[in-house]
This record gives sequence, C-alpha cells and structure tokens, in this order.
Amino acid sequence: MSERLVIGMLGCGTVGSGVLKLLMDKQALFAERAQVEIEVRKVLVRDPSRVREEWVPRELLTTDPDEIFEDPEIQIVVEVMGGVNPAKDYLMMALQSGKHVVTANKALLAQQGDDLFDAANESGAALHFEAAVAGGIPIISALKRGLVSNTLRSVYGIINGTTNYILSAMTEEGRGFEEVLAEAQAKGYAESDPTDDVEGFDAAYKLAILSSLIFNKRIDVKQIHRVGIQSVAAQDIAYAKQFGYTIKLLAIAKRTRNGLEARVNPTMIPADHPLASVNGVYNALLVQGDAVGDLMFYGRGAGQMPTASAIVSDILNIAVEIDSPPNLLMSCQHSENVAQLSAPDHVINRYYLRIQTEDKSGVLGHIGHLLGKEDISIHTLIQTKHRPGEAEIVLITHPVSEQKLRQAVAELRKLETTRRIDSIIRVEDFGQ
Amino acid sequence: MSERLVIGMLGCGTVGSGVLKLLMDKQALFAERAQVEIEVRKVLVRDPSRVREEWVPRELLTTDPDEIFEDPEIQIVVEVMGGVNPAKDYLMMALQSGKHVVTANKALLAQQGDDLFDAANESGAALHFEAAVAGGIPIISALKRGLVSNTLRSVYGIINGTTNYILSAMTEEGRGFEEVLAEAQAKGYAESDPTDDVEGFDAAYKLAILSSLIFNKRIDVKQIHRVGIQSVAAQDIAYAKQFGYTIKLLAIAKRTRNGLEARVNPTMIPADHPLASVNGVYNALLVQGDAVGDLMFYGRGAGQMPTASAIVSDILNIAVEIDSPPNLLMSCQHSENVAQLSAPDHVINRYYLRIQTEDKSGVLGHIGHLLGKEDISIHTLIQTKHRPGEAEIVLITHPVSEQKLRQAVAELRKLETTRRIDSIIRVEDFGQ
Repeated sequence: MSERLVIGMLGCGTVGSGVLKLLMDKQALFAERAQVEIEVRKVLVRDPSRVREEWVPRELLTTDPDEIFEDPEIQIVVEVMGGVNPAKDYLMMALQSGKHVVTANKALLAQQGDDLFDAANESGAALHFEAAVAGGIPIISALKRGLVSNTLRSVYGIINGTTNYILSAMTEEGRGFEEVLAEAQAKGYAESDPTDDVEGFDAAYKLAILSSLIFNKRIDVKQIHRVGIQSVAAQDIAYAKQFGYTIKLLAIAKRTRNGLEARVNPTMIPADHPLASVNGVYNALLVQGDAVGDLMFYGRGAGQMPTASAIVSDILNIAVEIDSPPNLLMSCQHSENVAQLSAPDHVINRYYLRIQTEDKSGVLGHIGHLLGKEDISIHTLIQTKHRPGEAEIVLITHPVSEQKLRQAVAELRKLETTRRIDSIIRVEDFGQ
Repeated sequence: MSERLVIGMLGCGTVGSGVLKLLMDKQALFAERAQVEIEVRKVLVRDPSRVREEWVPRELLTTDPDEIFEDPEIQIVVEVMGGVNPAKDYLMMALQSGKHVVTANKALLAQQGDDLFDAANESGAALHFEAAVAGGIPIISALKRGLVSNTLRSVYGIINGTTNYILSAMTEEGRGFEEVLAEAQAKGYAESDPTDDVEGFDAAYKLAILSSLIFNKRIDVKQIHRVGIQSVAAQDIAYAKQFGYTIKLLAIAKRTRNGLEARVNPTMIPADHPLASVNGVYNALLVQGDAVGDLMFYGRGAGQMPTASAIVSDILNIAVEIDSPPNLLMSCQHSENVAQLSAPDHVINRYYLRIQTEDKSGVLGHIGHLLGKEDISIHTLIQTKHRPGEAEIVLITHPVSEQKLRQAVAELRKLETTRRIDSIIRVEDFGQ
C-alpha cells in the first residue's frame, strides 16, 4: 500500500524537466523503496509555450502561483526556477504554510538562506537542498547525517564544472584562458556571460552552504574570500607542472589555529593528490573529520539527470518522514552567524609568484634580500629569459602569512628592476 | 533541552572502545546537532580484566547479558563483538524486544542477515550497519538515502584494506606475495591467520551487503563468486604495468544483459582509472546509477576511529528518529532472495593469461589457432624466454564468455607444448 504524495514544482527548465522525467519513469521503484506514489499536481512556469519537452503534460503547467500555494493537498514544493526573486518569496510562502521545500538554488541559499531556514524551523517544514552543491554527489546528506559524529575540520572542493573544464583543458593542451573559454562557450560548457562561473561566484555560493555545515554556523557568501580563474595564465600552468603541481579552482573551508577560513581561489595542489586528477566537468570534495579522517567524494557536479537524482532523492527522504516530527539532523541547527572568519592577513600558506624583472646582475640578490627581510624563505626558484633585457623569475615560498606576503609584494613592486608581478597563486598542502 | 538516550554495548575491543571514546568526548556536539544526551549504561564483555583502556569506567563493564536485554531503558544496542555467535542471538533478542540495533558485523549480516532484518521489520526496530562496509565511508547511507532515486547499475569496490595494502606494496616494490604478507603481518595490517582477508571472505561479506542494496534483493554470501589474491604473482603485476593496468582485489556487483553478477576477484583495471590509484589501507567504491552517472567514494575502510565514526553516526541517526515510525528508506524493503545470479559461465570479460610453454617454433601458431576455434581473439600478446627451452606467453583477450574461456584453457592445457598456465585474471572495463 503506497501513500499518495502531492507535490508542486516551480520551474520547468532543464533540471525541472529532468525531475519530472524521473518521477514519471520510476513510479514502481519509488513505490517499492519508499511506499509512496508521487503526483506532480502543478508546475509553475512563466510561459507554457516555452516548455519544449513534448512529454511534459500540458495540463500540469500553470502561470498562477496560487494553484500551488493555495492547494492544501500539495505537501512538497520543488523549486528549480533559479534566481533570488521571486523564488525567495515563493519558498517563504511555502515554508510559512508548512509545505516542505526541496530546492537546488545555491544563489538564494547562500545569500538569503537565513530567512528560509528560520521560516522552516518555525513551521517545522523540511528544507532540503542536496542538489544545490555538487549536483548528484550526496555530500549534504553525508555531512548532515553520515558524518554527524565528527567535528569536521575542512572541506576542499572542486565544485564548479565550468572552471574545472577550462583549467583541465589549459593543463592538457597548454592553451590560454581566453581561447579555452571561447571553446567551452561554443560547446555549451560555459555561459555566454561566464562571470558567475569564471569569477568564482558559483563556487562561493556552494562553499557558503558547505562551510555552514563544516563550521556549524551560518555564513553569508559575502564573508567568503573569492578569486576567479581569469588571471591564471598558460605560463602559470606550465610552471606548476614543472614544480609538480596542478592548478585547480578550489573552494576551501577549514578550521585553522587562527580561526575559520573560507575562500575560493585558484590553487596549486600537488600533482599526485587525488583532487589533481579530477578533470573536466567532474566535481570532487575532500572532507576531513576528526574521527573519520580523510574522505573523498567524486561525481558529476551538474547536468540534468545528476541534479534531478539529488532532487528526487530529497523528495523521497521527505516523503518517508512526512508524518514524523522534523528530523533534527536535516534541519538547520545553527542560528548564529560566523562572527568573523580568520582575516585573510593571518592565513598561512605557501605562495607561487611570477615576476618580470630587468635582466641585470644583482636582481636575484635584491629579491632574496627583500623577501628575507619579511622572513619569507624561498622553497624553489627558476629564472628564465624571454626577451632581451627582461628576465622572468618564478618562485614558491615556504609558509608565510598573507600579510607578510602582501608587504613583500608591495616592496617587490617598488624595486627599480621589477617590471610586473604577473601572478600570485596560493599553494595548498592540505593540512600536512 | 536534550533528550536522554540510553544505550547498551556488546563488546569493548578496539572498535568498541573507540565508540565509547567518541560518545564520551563529544557530548556537547551531539547535544547541539541531535539534541540528545547519550548514556552508555552497560558494556557486555567476556572478561572485564582484559579491557585495557584505562579510561573505560569499570562500572560499565558486565558479563551478564541480562543487564542489557532486561533493562527497559536501553533503547539502542550497539554490537561490536564480532563473530556470528553469540552475536546473532543477542541481536535477535534485542530486535524482538523492540530495541534498535547498530552493528558493524559484516560476517553476521552476510550469512544470517535475513533473520535479523525480518525481526527488525516485525518489531519496527531500526537495524543500522554503516560500519559493516568500508569503515568510515558513509556508503550505506548514500545507497539507501542519497541515491534512492536511482536504479543502481553497479558497484565496484576496493573494500578490503589488507589485500589492498599487499597488492599496493607488491606493485610499488615489485616484491612477491609471501614476502609482503609477512611484512603486513609484522606491521599489524594483516592477521596472523590471514585467510579471511587474503582469500576474499571479508570482501565477499561486504559485497553481499552492498549487492543486496544494488539489486534490491537479499543475497547470501554463498552466492558470491570469490577468488583471493594468494595466486597473484609478482610477474603478473609486472606484466599488468607493462600493459597499462593495475591489479586490485575488486568486489563487483552489477546488472548485466545476462542477469545479476556478484563476485570478488583479483582484477586488472586500467592504470589511469580512479580506482587504480587507491593505495594502501584506503577503500574506495565506484557506484553507477542511471540518473546520477558515476560516483566515487574514497576513505579509510577500517581502523578504530573511522569505524567508530560510522557507528556513532548510526546511533545519532536513530536517536533523532526514535519517536517516529520506522524510516522505510533505512529498513530492509526486500524479503526475496536473488533467485540466481548470472552463471559465471555467461559473464563476458576480457582475460589475462600467463602460460609457460616449450620454446618451439609453431607454439604461438598453435595457441592462436586454438583460441580462434573458440572465437577468442587476442588483444595483446608478449612472448619472452626465461629459461632455456621454455617460453612465457602472456596475452590479453578481447571480451569473451567465461564458458568459452574455460573451454579454451582446457584445450590449451592439453597442448603438448604447454607446461603450465600460471595465471588467469579478469580485465575490467567498467561497462565501457
């Protein structure tokens, strides 16, 4: 005997139609596993004529939100429309009236999640968002349930497929950023306006969600230090290879001696680290817990069906608990915001620098002296000559605070012989 | 306001004391996340004087099972004693009286799980076993909850740390099985009687549990085809490298055109496959679902605290739902057994063969002719000479049924020029 569960959907784009497809195709499986029969009653869209999938029954489509929010039989609202507004208003309405919510909306959760979680806690409704981070990888459920016995130390994630595709292609083919971006756009792996991905906004939204689970505090995405990949040059990738590193856009949340740290930036990681071989549009997350040690999760971070997999799993997880009191592990237990993340100044890292200087005798000595004054010691250094009269100096430092590095970079810039500092990239040693 | 939850434990060895430690150290965390205060009331041991950890309070230890099973306040029984008996009787008693159970006992679940799951379903008690497979990796929860929207196609697992340590060391150092096993025993990575690990029993127990979740049917471990690593020679590993492969003990459950397949055996996998770089005592699982695509989970598959992490997470997951009806996703939904797995004969694979023959002209021709008669075509072949008059022929076939391969091997053995067939190892292409 299956119970009947009625849901309403907001949006019917790529992901939305994937969700509908999964719900229609797998009735038998869901009846077996969750003893539930799911009826999609209405799908809110802006313009029904723009829903191209022929198999979407036209009678489901509506442009009137009341058909969802005023229908007392609808118990779960699935939001796959994206954008902060009007999605937020809709979800607030749903939660306040006790309807459960499943959403894939990372931008909304990262920027205005507070209000949604408060509303959910107040009405006792569930607010699930597995699909908002790393697509089909069940990372949210792992952090909330499977690893709940751990104090989580850190997460290091490759959580934006577009930038990982671009960096992977740059690494494999030695090509430059602009060229690979244009190709990614042509292939549909990057948007025509790629800002959201390339400049790290998308990764920062996801990291805000992840780091709130790592730190057990709320975090506003504005608190996250963010650097995109547009400044990574083909030369940097070539030098990284030479030094035994790979450059990835990493989203990092970690507890350090100097406090909590959350940032998205291009990062040099050892070429033999498991994250270094995560290529193309794949996502991966390395999670460190005090009891469990290092765990890695790897899979498709986007795409119609992987994302739909996460959304429908959320629906079924809510379905089997729909007559139970709210599940504390799945609800937001923290109402405080992280007061302050560790000031970037105090963050300790090794750094890679690429500097153009005049090709004069004594230049290396000046640079070494200047770094030494700031207590920065050099791990590796290569000097090459590209053009007459100009030398390129590439170096990796030993661990140093960002503050000291900044001062040293300012001093380096003042040197008469310095023409440009082309790149400053962090080197990550994963707490080793 | 935390609720109080009273638990009883069976066993206080390495894992048991890790569980106690985690429960004692993390009261505050659990109060915050699950609003629960956990009291361990009694720990059943055979001999209290043999519990060496000084921080285990002596008054918890008891040799009388009634102190646990007759205590109506004990709601969860945690079994970490291992072995089939008397663990099974204890857990049956617990489940029949409605106490929830958390167990790490793969041998018990794989051999007599039916009775336990039936008892749990009857009384409505929870039976959680995250720690029984792959230690700290939350794979059971992922399969039961996070991927519930998928029809699962397959799982490929490196789920026995001891054999993976041995094969990794053989691969890295070119040494033989016996030598590396002795070293692993000296280091404590292998038992003094290594049968359970080396011959694949441990992996088969875990695979029985995993494959029941992949196939949605019960499976008895006896149905699983099992080959250990004792027959893998240093030469096989060297040839595998030469051909671009790595040898791993893989536990495999998959749906094929010819039915369901479940087996544990040494397997050649492409050296650039993510599973190939899982070394030492680490575990990894590649899961393929129809919606989610390929997912990989990687982490510590054994050890005190990773295993305790899984057990305590199970406890907390039960704790937050203790006043709710049984969670259908976490209970055993299947009562039928897999009637029949695909007969190994019909399984299609590529194979690696290493053959010692007389070094005579025409030998290669004979072998080629004989394989051709069975419709087996050769993908790669190397012939080398080790001793005067003897040649070693190593080859990898194109895909062929095990039945045909067996016939061909029987014919090969009959050839006058064949001295020995030293190795037959399956080559896995992961459904490509």
